[in-house]
This record gives sequence, structure tokens and C-alpha cells, in this order.
Amino acid sequence: MLMTADQYLDSIRTRGIAVWFRGEKLPNPVDHPVTFPPANCLAETYRMALAPDTRDLLTGRSPLTGEATNVANLLWTSREDLLKRMEWERLVGRRTARGALRSPGLDALNALAIVTRRVDRARGTEYRARFDAFLRAVHEHDWALSGAMTDPRGDRSRGPSQQIDPDLYLRVVARRRDGVVLRGAKAHQTSACHSHWHLVLPLGCREGEEDWAIAAAVPSNAPGLFHLYSRQPGDDRRTERADLDVGLPDFGGCESLLVFDDVFVPNERIFLNGETPWTRDLVHYFGSFHRHCYGGCKVGIADVLIGAAAAVAEMHGVLDRPIVQDKLTEMVHLTETMYACGVAASALGRMEEDVFIPDLALAQVTKLNVTRFPFEIARLAADLAGGTMTTLPAEGDLRHPELGKLVRKFMATRAGVDPEDRMRILRLLEFLTHGMGSTYFLHESLHGAGAPEAMRITLRKEIDLAPLVANAKALARCADA
Amino acid sequence: MLMTADQYLDSIRTRGIAVWFRGEKLPNPVDHPVTFPPANCLAETYRMALAPDTRDLLTGRSPLTGEATNVANLLWTSREDLLKRMEWERLVGRRTARGALRSPGLDALNALAIVTRRVDRARGTEYRARFDAFLRAVHEHDWALSGAMTDPRGDRSRGPSQQIDPDLYLRVVARRRDGVVLRGAKAHQTSACHSHWHLVLPLGCREGEEDWAIAAAVPSNAPGLFHLYSRQPGDDRRTERADLDVGLPDFGGCESLLVFDDVFVPNERIFLNGETPWTRDLVHYFGSFHRHCYGGCKVGIADVLIGAAAAVAEMHGVLDRPIVQDKLTEMVHLTETMYACGVAASALGRMEEDVFIPDLALAQVTKLNVTRFPFEIARLAADLAGGTMTTLPAEGDLRHPELGKLVRKFMATRAGVDPEDRMRILRLLEFLTHGMGSTYFLHESLHGAGAPEAMRITLRKEIDLAPLVANAKALARCADA
Amino acid sequence: MLMTADQYLDSIRTRGIAVWFRGEKLPNPVDHPVTFPPANCLAETYRMALAPDTRDLLTGRSPLTGEATNVANLLWTSREDLLKRMEWERLVGRRTARGALRSPGLDALNALAIVTRRVDRARGTEYRARFDAFLRAVHEHDWALSGAMTDPRGDRSRGPSQQIDPDLYLRVVARRRDGVVLRGAKAHQTSACHSHWHLVLPLGCREGEEDWAIAAAVPSNAPGLFHLYSRQPGDDRRTERADLDVGLPDFGGCESLLVFDDVFVPNERIFLNGETPWTRDLVHYFGSFHRHCYGGCKVGIADVLIGAAAAVAEMHGVLDRPIVQDKLTEMVHLTETMYACGVAASALGRMEEDVFIPDLALAQVTKLNVTRFPFEIARLAADLAGGTMTTLPAEGDLRHPELGKLVRKFMATRAGVDPEDRMRILRLLEFLTHGMGSTYFLHESLHGAGAPEAMRITLRKEIDLAPLVANAKALARCADA
Amino acid sequence: MLMTADQYLDSIRTRGIAVWFRGEKLPNPVDHPVTFPPANCLAETYRMALAPDTRDLLTGRSPLTGEATNVANLLWTSREDLLKRMEWERLVGRRTARGALRSPGLDALNALAIVTRRVDRARGTEYRARFDAFLRAVHEHDWALSGAMTDPRGDRSRGPSQQIDPDLYLRVVARRRDGVVLRGAKAHQTSACHSHWHLVLPLGCREGEEDWAIAAAVPSNAPGLFHLYSRQPGDDRRTERADLDVGLPDFGGCESLLVFDDVFVPNERIFLNGETPWTRDLVHYFGSFHRHCYGGCKVGIADVLIGAAAAVAEMHGVLDRPIVQDKLTEMVHLTETMYACGVAASALGRMEEDVFIPDLALAQVTKLNVTRFPFEIARLAADLAGGTMTTLPAEGDLRHPELGKLVRKFMATRAGVDPEDRMRILRLLEFLTHGMGSTYFLHESLHGAGAPEAMRITLRKEIDLAPLVANAKALARCADA
Repeated sequence: MLMTADQYLDSIRTRGIAVWFRGEKLPNPVDHPVTFPPANCLAETYRMALAPDTRDLLTGRSPLTGEATNVANLLWTSREDLLKRMEWERLVGRRTARGALRSPGLDALNALAIVTRRVDRARGTEYRARFDAFLRAVHEHDWALSGAMTDPRGDRSRGPSQQIDPDLYLRVVARRRDGVVLRGAKAHQTSACHSHWHLVLPLGCREGEEDWAIAAAVPSNAPGLFHLYSRQPGDDRRTERADLDVGLPDFGGCESLLVFDDVFVPNERIFLNGETPWTRDLVHYFGSFHRHCYGGCKVGIADVLIGAAAAVAEMHGVLDRPIVQDKLTEMVHLTETMYACGVAASALGRMEEDVFIPDLALAQVTKLNVTRFPFEIARLAADLAGGTMTTLPAEGDLRHPELGKLVRKFMATRAGVDPEDRMRILRLLEFLTHGMGSTYFLHESLHGAGAPEAMRITLRKEIDLAPLVANAKALARCADA
Repeated sequence: MLMTADQYLDSIRTRGIAVWFRGEKLPNPVDHPVTFPPANCLAETYRMALAPDTRDLLTGRSPLTGEATNVANLLWTSREDLLKRMEWERLVGRRTARGALRSPGLDALNALAIVTRRVDRARGTEYRARFDAFLRAVHEHDWALSGAMTDPRGDRSRGPSQQIDPDLYLRVVARRRDGVVLRGAKAHQTSACHSHWHLVLPLGCREGEEDWAIAAAVPSNAPGLFHLYSRQPGDDRRTERADLDVGLPDFGGCESLLVFDDVFVPNERIFLNGETPWTRDLVHYFGSFHRHCYGGCKVGIADVLIGAAAAVAEMHGVLDRPIVQDKLTEMVHLTETMYACGVAASALGRMEEDVFIPDLALAQVTKLNVTRFPFEIARLAADLAGGTMTTLPAEGDLRHPELGKLVRKFMATRAGVDPEDRMRILRLLEFLTHGMGSTYFLHESLHGAGAPEAMRITLRKEIDLAPLVANAKALARCADA
Repeated sequence: MLMTADQYLDSIRTRGIAVWFRGEKLPNPVDHPVTFPPANCLAETYRMALAPDTRDLLTGRSPLTGEATNVANLLWTSREDLLKRMEWERLVGRRTARGALRSPGLDALNALAIVTRRVDRARGTEYRARFDAFLRAVHEHDWALSGAMTDPRGDRSRGPSQQIDPDLYLRVVARRRDGVVLRGAKAHQTSACHSHWHLVLPLGCREGEEDWAIAAAVPSNAPGLFHLYSRQPGDDRRTERADLDVGLPDFGGCESLLVFDDVFVPNERIFLNGETPWTRDLVHYFGSFHRHCYGGCKVGIADVLIGAAAAVAEMHGVLDRPIVQDKLTEMVHLTETMYACGVAASALGRMEEDVFIPDLALAQVTKLNVTRFPFEIARLAADLAGGTMTTLPAEGDLRHPELGKLVRKFMATRAGVDPEDRMRILRLLEFLTHGMGSTYFLHESLHGAGAPEAMRITLRKEIDLAPLVANAKALARCADA
Repeated sequence: MLMTADQYLDSIRTRGIAVWFRGEKLPNPVDHPVTFPPANCLAETYRMALAPDTRDLLTGRSPLTGEATNVANLLWTSREDLLKRMEWERLVGRRTARGALRSPGLDALNALAIVTRRVDRARGTEYRARFDAFLRAVHEHDWALSGAMTDPRGDRSRGPSQQIDPDLYLRVVARRRDGVVLRGAKAHQTSACHSHWHLVLPLGCREGEEDWAIAAAVPSNAPGLFHLYSRQPGDDRRTERADLDVGLPDFGGCESLLVFDDVFVPNERIFLNGETPWTRDLVHYFGSFHRHCYGGCKVGIADVLIGAAAAVAEMHGVLDRPIVQDKLTEMVHLTETMYACGVAASALGRMEEDVFIPDLALAQVTKLNVTRFPFEIARLAADLAGGTMTTLPAEGDLRHPELGKLVRKFMATRAGVDPEDRMRILRLLEFLTHGMGSTYFLHESLHGAGAPEAMRITLRKEIDLAPLVANAKALARCADA
């Protein structure tokens, strides 16, 4: 049964999720002015799943329940599923200027479906059956899931078992007949505080690191679980209720450090437990799937920047100048190149077990471009915005009875353009190029789903150079060809 | 009936095609050492259409004859056709380090199929029936076709009718009951001198420029038709028969200026004749289709550069260095990005009339990337090749009884590496980065299917910014949103 | 007489400068937590002018008073002056992570020195004598000056006299025997609210726009003058007194909209008054001088990013990795390239009137590189910082008695690294890459001293292509060479 | 005594220099159509040293002879010497589209002056006195010198003593009372075959590799010495005497492999002999000095490309289009950035022993930019040139009595433009972008004076990050700052 957006927000509001922000515990993760826009962004995926014009794109039929289910919770079974994903990710990104916050959960589901089956086959475990049971419940309740992989990691040159504190990677600290107890943390948790469940996944573990090789589903209200909510530049403009200054009043993104202070997980929610060889598979699939999705969701945000930059150019009376058109074209070109990579990875996908996965080399390529192009798109948007974007007076000045007239006077451009509208668009551009939104449009684009180096190493492994070397030698008529 | 490669070469050899090179008329366009490698490259598409391992990829069934037909002559009817195109274009590019020289003909066929139908509908003409009859003959004879659009153009700031010489755009100089007489030239004719027929297409014409609005099929041995074969840097190494110095001894590309010295074309081979409004459609479709194909064929050549660069690094003992791997990875990344664009344009294609065409915005995006990335790929390949690529002794030195020993002595690297093999790979890299092959890997990548500006203008038109502007304004809560 | 930093701050505190921030009037422009760091940054230039280790670099002898004077107020008379400028601009930038806020005033002084002399010669005016008298007072009082050129400009496709409101460019609204009355505003006023005087300069005016062609010195406490202080992303972290969250607690930059609500200027402070042909000279010189200085001051900020990125890499245990070193090297390379441009423009300068000016082509080149490289430097810094930079818990969490332990636990890296230090460096990186500091490191780098297009147009004019064309034709042995 | 250009050419013609090209021994290294243009390019430096308009720039006074001496043979003693160097290198580059082929010799002289003095001080040798005696003779005879450092190097992962053949690095194979015997080769020898003497320098040697640690002056006609002359793409167009097809008929560059087949060197010409610790100094200084000079000489070639591209745009009637102007501006911007780096390295130089050397960090920065920008400059030039550059008919076609008319007809553009002139300029562009000239404008720019990696490693060493780290920590108020 699909929830409405309001039902979703209520369900999170009342779930008892523990969130701390700036040293204070929030009553709930929804109603604070800083946390509402991200919650509302996630709610948008519920809204769109029911709205007539987007329903088809945002839902599919669950093979487990036979009912309409949000695409964010479905295993992929065909090329069309992945092509569709690029489309809905982009649309959600465009509608919210933030994107589909349920993607990590979706990627975790699909990665687990593959890997649990393989572990079962090799080790005689029954992880996939447990996973299927959990997935059926997800579909029945229309839950929002987060995917939790990245540990704090401490010294990056050392593995889980070599840190000064073993908890720097999440681990099993006690094993009971009915389950395990987890201690540690997961970092960079996108919208986890607005999710019903977390899909916990391990980073790569070696033999001897069995305690860190744990995958499980954990309810977001489990005892011992809490969030340290991350700050973003400009976040307290939301607290001020200065909506104009905020730039994007209705939506936003959030991250948190999710702490596991001895959290119990029952056996039926455990999907990997000490089988270290498969941790690397999970990293590989989850990372690659998530890299793929950037070819949709970040593209939608880029669409917003293109629209905002064009809006400003029009307000300034320069939209038709060749050089302005040329910069807009470049923004479009870079944006469509990112999208093309995501689409191509979908089109050239293949079945692994019962999941249709994107082409893994192109998934890396997609994300690598996303680690670069948004910075140039933002630079071009800022170029078109002009210096006023960075020196705008505050909404407080605009609302002031005396000053307000002067603000309007000096923010005026062409006849017919409302100076406040111009300020609004410029604040939206500020938000995305160097405010709260740049946190995710630029910097999460860089580091989400792994640092650029992770993609490069994976890409290099995915492409076998030997046949290319042999082919080149044959063309040059080398003796050893 | 599919021809063998030898049958193809014979058919061109004996067709009576007039080709001039450096002021001399060639006996035929096949057997000169400079012209053979390009002929052989085209022959490779015949070879691969019959070879067991590539037959399926290089052929399809003709709906006109019901028989296996080379993909280079087939109208596209599905997404799969276009995805397959990317694959065979890349493979031919990789196998030959040159690419599928029949692409302009293929693009011309598909563009004509759409436009003839539209003109017929609007004007009551019967161009499509004529076209279908011609196409059936093409399939029956397995002919190689060239696509001939670009006129010499003279002053680029003026149109066909405003030039100092009206022949600077190909035009009808006489109209007879049974056909027309053409005068002028078509420039940059890729492999036209190795084709059986030319598909002549017009550039954009305005009202009053009816004489230039001509599309037709012209046999390559038509009286009055001849080629001025273009020089490329290093071409006379082929004349010297210095195969090692050549770098790519077996394959190559060629261009010519195709002169129409009053060539008669009978009515049944005319597919547009004065209907100026449709000339822009032909330019748009032909140009965009051809831009799309660069996402396959140039990618195959990039594969050769990657293989050759890796081969050199291995010979030099540095393949495992992180920085070398990083550069190879960057070459792969750029190459796959180009390919992804071509694949995505295929995947997001649509039917126009009875032809499945690529997404036209992404076709521009594909080619725009191809105007940039090969230069960086070549730069990275040259970086990995080292300075020796540019200061190699000649094959003559290597073959000299005394000097040869010294050449081998000083070209040696690691034990087990044949110094001559190293020289061969370096010459291949020279060929592709700044020799004959750079003509097409770099410079045709820049200008083929139109200059970069043409793509930018088309891309800008294909993307409607209005909804993006409205969306941005809504997100910023503008009053006029 | 050089002021101490404290004397300077007192002098601004008590000067009666009117500043509004978020709709409220500040008691003074110094003591608010948001305004203090920028004031302190300007104070640093006073501090360094007296400190033994920087005194020689930051001062020179005034030919007007014969005494030591801050370099920020001196006319340039030699190549050494300009080379020295690059050095002190960089040092101040490095020391403050913000830069020398007095540069616009310095550039305005030097531009006025040249242009007043020229107008006097052509029109028999006495502007230069007035200017010299003012400059002597500046040296005597060690005043901080701002340079105020950019008007709000409204519709960018129209000039001063064609706007919907004539005040969109600052103008003379009344002429009295003893002076003029100014109305309008100057935008993007860097540190103007911490200056003693403003040097008002016009943008380019045509014949008939004499009322807008005004240059003058205006005291910052003139009746009718007030500032709308601009917001920057993250500015209210300063209000929270969350120094750690701020990232750069001691320094910062500020911009304001400086409103002239009918401000009287006496004749002896007027340096141009209606001589429209020279407005373009002022724009050209002031703009170019200011572009030149970016080759020093932004370089100093880049030095801070390099240092911070290296510090993080060390804390994370990855400083020695080849790929980390490679990225640091790229940051250094880009930084030094910017600096090199500034140095070269100094080295190839020339005398104009009695001022030694930088090479004007290279001044544009300097700034053009500064419109690009900081974005890539910031991207690389963010790459090295890792995702934690964007998901840090708040200082409030760290200071919380219970949570604090967990924050420290999970922010730990290598033994010996204080987790709080790590958070501090990451917040500094956030500040400069997408917080308050990115306002000036990225976006002012783009638009300060004019948009990129302004540099491109000027550069194109500075370089005469005719001799290059002639030279190329001669080398190719063209008939018309 | 300065030689005239003719005297210089005669002196080389008659010197008995052994050169092999394509397996044949040349009678002399001057008069072959392939070798003459490079010889003439070197002769240009003699011509300019006597021509009234360039004499002052190309000469200086020798402190050893007191007479006017070519700048290519002078030790640097001041900042002005280095600034002047940038200027004359650029001018020679612009005049010849090739550059100052005597630069490696000049760099070797200055490196040896420093290092010989240091070895003498440490080891009590008398190398500097020998060097001074040699230098006086150079000034007296106005000899052209080459600098010979790069050995063939075999396996790049191994040093001189670890190769499969010890001769892969030039070495001493016999020691006699009066001198030493050298065996091996020096690769990539720019214009060495047109020099009177070679300055042989070692690559870096470790303890135990004394036999490879040899520096000396060797006359170009020494018994046992000979050249294998390198091929470049398009070189045999020179043999055809097709001057139009050549593109740059009068000038060119050349490289050779210089073989030492047991060459005796007397003691008085030996400047280092086994003192391995100083080999790295020689590499460091010679490499850095040579990297510095690229900021002048390649810039001059870029000037030719800018001129040629502008010439074509004018011929095509599109010079005034904004997008054309924008591309030319970008070419200028990149060119001037390279020059700025060279100038800045000069301006910030310092004395080392009695030689004024460029700033070594900026020397690396200069060359690093030169490894990148020429590729983009060439791409932009090709963009402006249009496709015709790559599909031009041959000069043979133009000279043919019948065809010639048609070539002129179809190569026509605007009234008043000679079609042959257009072809000439396009061939010059071909020459520099992917013909013979690209060998040095693109590929020597990449690898000359070491591969890009060499610059990156040196740059990283030249910049001490510790103070930057400390500064960043202080700004962030780190506890350990």
C-alpha cells in the first residue's frame, strides 16, 4: 500500500528516531526548520508515486505483493527498469533541486539480492530468504530505506582491524543466539534520519576481520541508534525563517553520522555475518549501482541551474547575446553528457543472478564525469548570474519598511521584472553554487559513492587491456602480435 | 548477394572511377600504394560481413530483398539497430584503426528515407518510390555508397546564390526532360573514390535557390565526375613502401574533392529537386545521424591508441607505475564517455516516419565530445609513448646491413622485447597522433559532420529552456512562476 | 604616521559609518560578530606595516610626506613596486585566507593619478592638484580607502541614461557652486564599510551622459551614505559564536551595497565631472590594475587551501600516496601559474604619465586564469579532504558533555592527531570551498574587477593581430604577404 | 667574431659531420632538401645577430673576449639577461615557426658553469678553468653548440648499470692518460647535426656508476660520431620539392640519434668524470633551464598559429563573428599565459655561483603549461581552419595545366583572396597541427627537457609544504599549530 506524503511524514515524525543537532536533541526529525526541507524532499517521492502525471514513472509492480510499489524499493529486472530509473531520478532531481534521497536504499537492496544468493550457494546459508521476507515487508509498508555503508575509517591507510579504535569500522561486539550487537558508526548518511529502516553494509574485510563483515536491516528507531545531524553552510538561514535568503525554501538534503551504541539485530534481519570474501562484492555492487544513479539525480539539479541561469540572463536583458547562449549551451552539453553516461550504463546492462544491473564500467564513467562537470556547470551558472549573486542584501533589508524601497530600487533590472523575483533566483543560484545545496551538488558529487579514486581503480579493473594491446600489435604488424 | 572483399576490390578497380593524385591520373583507385589501404579498409566491411565471428553484427535482413545485407546499407527500424550500429562502428574502428568508411552513405540513406516521404506527402512527388527502387538495387548489388553533402562554400558568410561563382555550391545547370545536369563539387569526400554510388545531398537553401536544392544518386563512374585525392602528412611513406615507417601498413583513410563537371542525372535517381524548405531537414537529419556515428567509429580508434600506449609502457618497463595506470585510466574514461553518448542517443531514439532515429540532442552531444576528447587522448598517448616516438630512425636505417645493428642496439628496452616491434608500435602511435591517421582521428573528429559550432547551435535548439526556467522559478517561489 | 591595528579599528568604530545588516542598523561596523573578522582582516594590513618581519614589504616612502606609508596607498613608480605588490598581496592573502581588502582603493588611486593628469592637459582642469592634495592627506592620516566603481546597472543591455530609473547608475542630481549632490548606489563594495574614504569612479559614459561621469573622494561618514551589508553562506555561524563551525574564526571578507541618498561632495574632492571621454580610461585602468592584483591576493588564499589539504591528507595517513602527491602538485601548479601571470605583468610594465603600470594584456590574462583555476583548486582540495568535510557534526555536538566523547571517538584518525584539529581544518576547507570564503575565493575571483567577458574583450583589443597575420603569410610565402 | 648566416652554413657544410637518413649517408648535413630548412633555421640566429633591427636583442658582450657574442652562447648574469632571453626566444620562434635551436647548448653551458665550480670546490678539480677556456673558444669562433643529455635508456625502470646493454647509457669504455673513449648514444638531439660542438652531459648516476658520469665537449666531426636523422610526418614532401604542400618551405626542425662509436675525448674537454653526486645537479639545472626556455620559443610558434588562424578566418569571411573572435582570444590567452610563466621565472630568478638562473619552481610550471596548452591552441586553430585544411588537393594538382583551373575555382572564397594563398596558409596550419611541425610544436612540447612527470616531481620538491600546513593550522586555530 502506497503511503501519501503526509502519511509518510507522520510515520517518521512519530517513529522515535533520535537526532541531535548542534548539541540539542530534536523532538522529531521532521518539524525543525532545518530538517523539514529534506524530509519534504523525501516525501516528494511519495507524492509523485501517487500523482497522476508521475505515477507510472515512480511506481512498478512488486513481484512479492503483486501491488504497485515505489520504484525506490524495487529490484531491477530489465533494461527498461534501469532506463526508467535514469528518468525518474532526473525528474525528482529537477522537481526538488535535491534529488531522490532513497537511492542508497535502493542500491543496497539490489546489491544484497545478488550477494545473498551467492553466499547461500557457496555457504549453504539462507540469507536470500531472509532478505526476501524483509523486502516483502518493505513493499507492504512502503517504507523508506537508507543504505549505510561508509564507516568513519580513521586512518585511511589501515583496514578495520588495524585502527587505534576497533569501532572506527562498525562491528559485532557481542553474538547471541538470537542475534548480534553492533557498535560503531556509519558516516555520510544521506536522509537516514528520515528513513524507516537502514540497510547496513560492510566495507571490504579481509580474513580475520569477520566481526566487521556484517550486513543487516535495522529499524531506525532501534535502541542505541542515534544521529548527529551535519551542518551545511547557510543552514541557519532556515532557522531564521528567512525563506528568500534560503534560496530553496521547500526542499533540501541532509546528512548525519549514525551512531550504533550497542544496537541489537535479530538473526532474521542479518544478511551477511562474517563471510568476508563477499564484502568486496557488496562494496563493488553497491558502489557501482550508486555511482550509476548520479547520472540521473545530479542531472536533474543541473537542469535547475540551467533554468535559473537562463532566468537571470533574461532578467538582466542579455539572454540573446551569443556569448550567453554559448555558455548556456555548454551547461546543457555537460549536463546531457552526464545523463548520456547513465543512460548508456542502463542500456548496456546485464543480468547478475536475478537482478538486471547497469554496465559496471560505464557506471564508473558516469560518476567520474559527475565528479567534474557540476563544478564547471556551477562556475558557468555563477558567470551568468553576475556578481550580484554574492553581494545580495538580506531578506530582512527587503522587508524593512524604509530600506525595502531602496532594495527594490537598486535590485531592479528591466521593466516587468520583479526585483524580489530576481533576488529569489539569485539566492537559488547561491544555494546551489556555494550554499547548502553546493554541499550535495558539488561535494557529494565528488565523494558520494566513493572518492574519484575508487571509480578510477574500478574502471581500470573493468576494462581488460590485453585484447587492446594485442589488437594494436596486430595492426602495427609486430612480430609478437 | 554479399560480395567478398576481393569481389568488392575488383568491382572498384574496374569501374572506371577517375582519380587524380598530385597532378597525375591513377589507373584505378585501388592499386596505388597510397590508395590501397583506404580501399582495403572499406573492403574490411565486406570481409567482416562474411566472417563467421562478425557476420551477425555486420549484417541484417533487407525488407526489400529478404536477404542478408550489409548493415552499412540498411534503414534503421528499432533501438536495437542503433545500439548495434554503435557496436559495429566501434569494432570496425578498432580492427582498422580507421573506421567504417561507409557511414556517410548509410546516414544519407536514412535521411533521404524520411525526407522523401515528407516531400511526397506535401508536394505529391514520388521521390520515396524512386528512392526505394534505388535502395533495392543497392541491396541486390551490395554496393558501397558515399554521402556527399558539403560544398566548397567559398565565402562562409554568404549562401549559395551570393558567391562570386555560383558553382561554389553544387547546382543544376541544365534541366532536360529525362533529368538534370550538375556542376560544382563536393568537398571532404570520405572514401567516395572507393564507392559505387554517391548520394548527393544539398546544404540549406532558401527560396530562390532552387537550383542548388538537389538530391540524387550518382554512379561513381558517371561521365564528368572525377576526384582530386587529398594529401595527408606522411602519405608518401606509403609510396616508398616503407611499411614500418608508415605505422599502419594495411589500412587508412582518404578524402577527395569530388568534381562534377556537368554530370547528367536521370530523373529516376533524383530524390529532391528544388523543394528548398526540405533542404534544411536533410542537413539536420544527415548531419545529426552522422554526428551520432562518431560515438562508435572514433571510439574504436581510441581503443587502438589505448592498446598501443599500454604496449609501449609495457615495453619500457613502466606499465605498473601508478601514474602510468592513471593516464591509461583517463584515456579509457574519455573513450567510454564518447561511447556512452553514442549508446545513449541510440537508446533514447524514436521513430520518424518509418526510420528509427537517434535522440537528436544527444547526437550533437556525442559529436561535441568527439571534437575534444581525441585531442586529449592523443596527448596522453604521446605522453606515455615518450620522446622516442618523435625521433625514430627510419626503416631504411634499420634495414641497412651495418646501421641496422646499431638501430636495434639503441632501440632495445627490456629483455624479450624486439626493438623492431617497439619501433612499429611507436610508428603506429605517430600515425594516429600526428601523422596520416591524425587527419581523421583528430581533425575529422573536429570537422566531420560539421564544425563544432553547428552542433552547438543544433543542441541549443533541441533543448527547450522554457520549462527549465519555469521550474527554477517555481522552486525559488518567484511571483511570476 | 602609520596607525596601529587598534588605532585603525577604533577610528572605524567611532567614525559614524551607517551599516544595515538583515534589516537592523549596527551600532558600528566593527564589533558585530559578523563584521569583526573582515574589519580585522583590514586591520592586519596595519599590523603588518608595523611588524618587524613584514614592515619592509608592507610600506614605502611617500614622496608627498617623505614618511613611511602603507603600500596600499602609494602610487607605483617602478617595476619593483609592482613585483613587490604581488609579494605583499600574496602574503596578506596567505596570512588571512582573505586578502588585501585595500586593493580597490589602491587601484583607484593609481588610475586617478593617470587620468586626472590627462584630463587636465586636455581640458585645462586642475583635477590632479586636487587629487595630490587628497593623497597627501591620505598619507598623513594613514586612511583606508575603498574603490567604488560598479553601479547596480539594471538592464545590462542598456547604458546609464537608458534605464527605467536613472539612479541605477550613480549620478549628479544637483550642482551647487561649492560641489555636487550624488544619488544612486555602488554595488559589490569590498570592505567599504571599514574604510575611511571612498574613491568613487564612473563606469563608461557616452556623450550626453555627463551627469553620470563623476569621480570623487567621499568620506565614509558623509551624510546620506549607508551600507546594506551582504549575506554570505554560513555567516550566522559567526553570530552563534561557534568558532569551530566557522572555519576561519579570525578573518573574513565583506561586501555591501553602498547607497548614496543625496550625498554632497565639495569641489575639492571631485576628480572628474562630466568629461565623458575619460570615463572609459578610468574603467580601463582601474579594471586592469585590479585584475592584476588577483595574481597576488587569490594566490595567497590558494596557498591556504594547499596547506589545509596537505594537513588533512597527513591526518588521514595518505600524504605519501602518489595520487595524493599528484593532486597537491596540480594545486601548486595552478596556483603558481596564477602568480606567474601577476609577476609577469609587473615585470613587463611601463610608465603611463608618472605611474608605473602593469602590462595591460597580461593583467587580463592574470585575471582570466583566476576566473578558472580557483574552482579547480577548490575541487582538488575537496577531493583530498574527503566526504567528512561535508558531513561534520556541529561544534555544539563536540562541546556536549556526552556526545562530545562520541564525536571525538568517531572523528579520530591516526594516533597523535587531535580529532578537534581535524574538524577545524575540515571546517576551514568548507569555509573556502563552499562556505563564506567561497564567496570571495571562487565567486569574487569570477566577477571581481569585471566579468570574464570584460577581460576577454580587453585582451583582444590589447593584442594586435595584424603583425601576426602578416608574419604567418610571409612564412607560408603567400603572394600578398 | 660573429659569423654571417652564409659563413655558418658553409662551416657546417664542410665540417665533415656524418649523417645518415633513410639508410643513406648524406654528403653533408646542409644541402639535402629535408635537412636544409632546419639548418636555415639555425642560420637565422646568425642572421638576426647581425641584422640592424634584431642585433641588440640577439647579442651581448662576452666577458671573455670583450666582443659582441650571440646570446645563444652567453652565461646569464642578471634578471635582464633572462627577460631578454624570453623575448629573443619568442621572436626567433615567431620568425621561423620553429624556434631557437641553439637553446639546449645554451642551457648546457650555464648548467656546466655552475656545477664545474662546485665540483672544483668540493673535489679540488679544475673543471671550471677547462670550461672557461672552451667557452672563450666558442665566443671567438661563434660556434653553434648542442646540448646532449638524454641517453636511449632502455628499460625505464632501471638505471645505467642495470640495463641489458651497458651502452644504453653513454659511458666511458676506456681511460687513457690523455683522455677517455666514449661509447653509446644520445637521443632526441635537436639540431645537433648542424652544430660545431656537442656538450655531452650525463643523466643521474649513483655510486658505482662512475663510468656513466661524464660531461665533455665533443667536436661534431670527431671520429666515431654519427647521426641517424629522424623522420617526421610529411618530411618527404620536401624531397618532392612541393613547397606549397610543405607548408613551411624555409624553416623546420630536426632531431637525430647521435651515436658514439668509441669516440676519444681529450682531458681538456672533460668537465665531469666520475663525480656521480653532481650528475643530479647537472640534470636539475640543465633540465630546469631548458624547461624555462619553452616559455619563449614555443610561444613564438603559437604566435604563428594565431596569425595563420586569423588569416584563414579573414579569407573565409568570418573574422568578425563573436565566436571566431572568442576562439582567437582563447588562443591568445593560452599563449600569453605560457609566456607569462617564462617571464615570471626570469623576473624571480637568483644567482647561483656566478650565473643568474630562473626561479626553478616557475621553470617547471612554465614547461608544464607548455605540455598542455599547445594541444588546445592547435585544436582551436584547426577549428578555425575548417575541414579544408585536411582535404586539400596537392600542389601537383594546382600546377597541372587543366586541373589547376578547377583547383583555383573550388578553393576560391571571397573576392580578392588568392586561392593559392589560402592553400598556403592551410598547409602551414597542417604543418603545425599535424604535420612535420607538430612534431615539435606538440610533441617536443610534451617531452622536451623531460616528460611531464619530471616537471611535476621537481615542482613538488621545490615547494616546501610545511609552512603552508603550519599557516593553515594557525588560521584554523588548531591545537598543534
